[in-house]
Amino acid sequence: MSKSLREPIFTLTTHRIEALGDGVFAIVMTLLILEIHVPQSHGGGGLASALAAMWPKFLCYGISFVTLGVYWVAHHLHFYTIKRANRALLWINILFLMCVSVVPFSTALIGEHYQERTAVVFFGVNMILISLVLYLHWAYATRGHRLVDPEITPRFVTSVKHVILMGPAVYIIAIGSSFLNTKISLALYLLVNLLYIIPGGAHLYLKHRPANS
Amino acid sequence: MSKSLREPIFTLTTHRIEALGDGVFAIVMTLLILEIHVPQSHGGGGLASALAAMWPKFLCYGISFVTLGVYWVAHHLHFYTIKRANRALLWINILFLMCVSVVPFSTALIGEHYQERTAVVFFGVNMILISLVLYLHWAYATRGHRLVDPEITPRFVTSVKHVILMGPAVYIIAIGSSFLNTKISLALYLLVNLLYIIPGGAHLYLKHRPANS
Amino acid sequence: MSKSLREPIFTLTTHRIEALGDGVFAIVMTLLILEIHVPQSHGGGGLASALAAMWPKFLCYGISFVTLGVYWVAHHLHFYTIKRANRALLWINILFLMCVSVVPFSTALIGEHYQERTAVVFFGVNMILISLVLYLHWAYATRGHRLVDPEITPRFVTSVKHVILMGPAVYIIAIGSSFLNTKISLALYLLVNLLYIIPGGAHLYLKHRPANS
Amino acid sequence: MSKSLREPIFTLTTHRIEALGDGVFAIVMTLLILEIHVPQSHGGGGLASALAAMWPKFLCYGISFVTLGVYWVAHHLHFYTIKRANRALLWINILFLMCVSVVPFSTALIGEHYQERTAVVFFGVNMILISLVLYLHWAYATRGHRLVDPEITPRFVTSVKHVILMGPAVYIIAIGSSFLNTKISLALYLLVNLLYIIPGGAHLYLKHRPANS
Repeated sequence: MSKSLREPIFTLTTHRIEALGDGVFAIVMTLLILEIHVPQSHGGGGLASALAAMWPKFLCYGISFVTLGVYWVAHHLHFYTIKRANRALLWINILFLMCVSVVPFSTALIGEHYQERTAVVFFGVNMILISLVLYLHWAYATRGHRLVDPEITPRFVTSVKHVILMGPAVYIIAIGSSFLNTKISLALYLLVNLLYIIPGGAHLYLKHRPANS
Repeated sequence: MSKSLREPIFTLTTHRIEALGDGVFAIVMTLLILEIHVPQSHGGGGLASALAAMWPKFLCYGISFVTLGVYWVAHHLHFYTIKRANRALLWINILFLMCVSVVPFSTALIGEHYQERTAVVFFGVNMILISLVLYLHWAYATRGHRLVDPEITPRFVTSVKHVILMGPAVYIIAIGSSFLNTKISLALYLLVNLLYIIPGGAHLYLKHRPANS
Repeated sequence: MSKSLREPIFTLTTHRIEALGDGVFAIVMTLLILEIHVPQSHGGGGLASALAAMWPKFLCYGISFVTLGVYWVAHHLHFYTIKRANRALLWINILFLMCVSVVPFSTALIGEHYQERTAVVFFGVNMILISLVLYLHWAYATRGHRLVDPEITPRFVTSVKHVILMGPAVYIIAIGSSFLNTKISLALYLLVNLLYIIPGGAHLYLKHRPANS
Repeated sequence: MSKSLREPIFTLTTHRIEALGDGVFAIVMTLLILEIHVPQSHGGGGLASALAAMWPKFLCYGISFVTLGVYWVAHHLHFYTIKRANRALLWINILFLMCVSVVPFSTALIGEHYQERTAVVFFGVNMILISLVLYLHWAYATRGHRLVDPEITPRFVTSVKHVILMGPAVYIIAIGSSFLNTKISLALYLLVNLLYIIPGGAHLYLKHRPANS
């Protein structure tokens, strides 16, 4: 059977991987809010203080949304250099999205139990797994210019790898910090994203052409 | 590292921002209904009156859906003039979608507690934040024709800014009205959308070409 | 302000309306299953009979999914003739999607209370509203060839209108039948879709070109 | 009426079927996690052991996500050969997506009751139905080169059919195994996917062109 199956040779495009990815990210981002339930208040001032008491959930919502933003931007940027797909790339993407889809659970867990190390570690490990699959995604696609432009230089490939690994490095520190105080971990989970957002940070390599070029 | 990272210069397209945006809007709009639960009635007439008693939830569903429609149309129209993206625009969009994603919570909150000022204020502040990020989106993209067509006139840029700010002006009045009666606020939350929907209103600048042009 | 706003004249495309529509339909279709909860059985045979007792929910899931399929196909087919959009068309679409988004609630309501006329009427009215907005969508876009190909004949426009109105006609009969027996209504809600699915039915006008043309 | 309806002959494109499909898959994949609820722990070690006790839910999440990945890849690959759509293909796709949308329920059922044969059989039958509709999809589109490239050989068509049917064959064995031990069934539900993922397996027919061709 294998011979006849080999017959048609397709060049897989990346269009539907990107569509599936955008869909999963959009859904995961919006599902986060479903884990925050409207409080059943009693009396006038009750609702305001009930909402105020929910600050860890709102904070974790913000952390997760921004972190998902970082991963979405990274996934998005990869596909400016990845020009083709193959079966393995499809599966690396599915693995990536599988880890991303766990984020609403991790977020609800840490939002509910932010003072428990177990929850903080679970969240950190979730993020490290996402980063490692993203690293695999990049390493696989660029190895020997497998699926990318021939003009991509080895130096650029390596630089992006370093950028991706900055995240897990901070997450490991954050996990370690949970043995001291889980609030330090939360702060690091929030701050790690600045590495990827602030201009001059990790995405320095991304510049748009001037309007009149 | 920063030097090698600068190497490839991409011109970011707006395609995937729009895809992520459409995804988030579609999900947020449809999640609204999940916050309305089927009543567990007892007897024949019980179900009809149970549904009738849920009018604030249906009303708030309608308000939020239409308001999300206004923001989606605005976001959509921006991208008829925004021709390129850059890293900052990606992040302004993620911030925008983060505020939009809170709407199901705000809607459930106001639907459950429409008589409490806290809920009404929360909803109004949510909408003001969305509008302000939308303003930032427009101001950033158009400043010095950064990411838009060179033909866009300063007068047009300013007009759109005014249109965007009409919403927050009404939301502030609505929030103030909640100190008198939260039903006035609800009415204003509903009516503000007419500014953006009725022909000759805020979107006057939008005209389609005749069919045989 | 209105003068300067009029300045840039855009021809709106239908691309993002279709994307938002596909998103909403995909989500509504998949949310239907969330309303069916896993039974908490006791013992071996308990689970099988618990699942069997849930037949009205599975039946209503099937009815709603197929009905949504009918509306999606119709919406999809409209855009083979609608070539442009304008502000009003955007809003008719948002109204259409707003009615479509209520379907998970209607489905859960009828699945939970299929023996109560209130639930059956609610479901039927929901479907009639969707059909009427779809009729408005078609009538608005085709009136004076406003947004469609100049080659579309008046006869074709009228035929599609008749096809759209066949649904509401059956839904009215189904609602009337609920005064006799709600199971007749359920049967009609299921069977009405055959008008749109069976070859030689309402979508006769749709034919694909042969493979080697 | 039928005559006038026949008038315009459209060639349906596959674009929106693929968009709806990607949307449904993205949502179903991400909804899976919603069925896993955050445990309400008591004390420090309580949360870790509560999470550990949830292993069947995490396992079933993994099985379902990967299985959905297999079906998405297959659906995706079909559209590299399917070049046109028609009304029947639209409906086969809707039927396919209807079966796919039941997966979050099947997964929650088996995750909650993995030791009960009823749950295991339900899951297996769900998967067999998806495979059979996928088979119908392929058989319908390729019969007489109805909707595919004329160059597709009968041998290739047959090979893909065999590949699709490998899944149901294993699912039948897994269902039978549930009479011995439901854990064997779970193991088979997990392992069946290797047939479709491992290089040299069922998707041998898929090869990408080398980077510099």
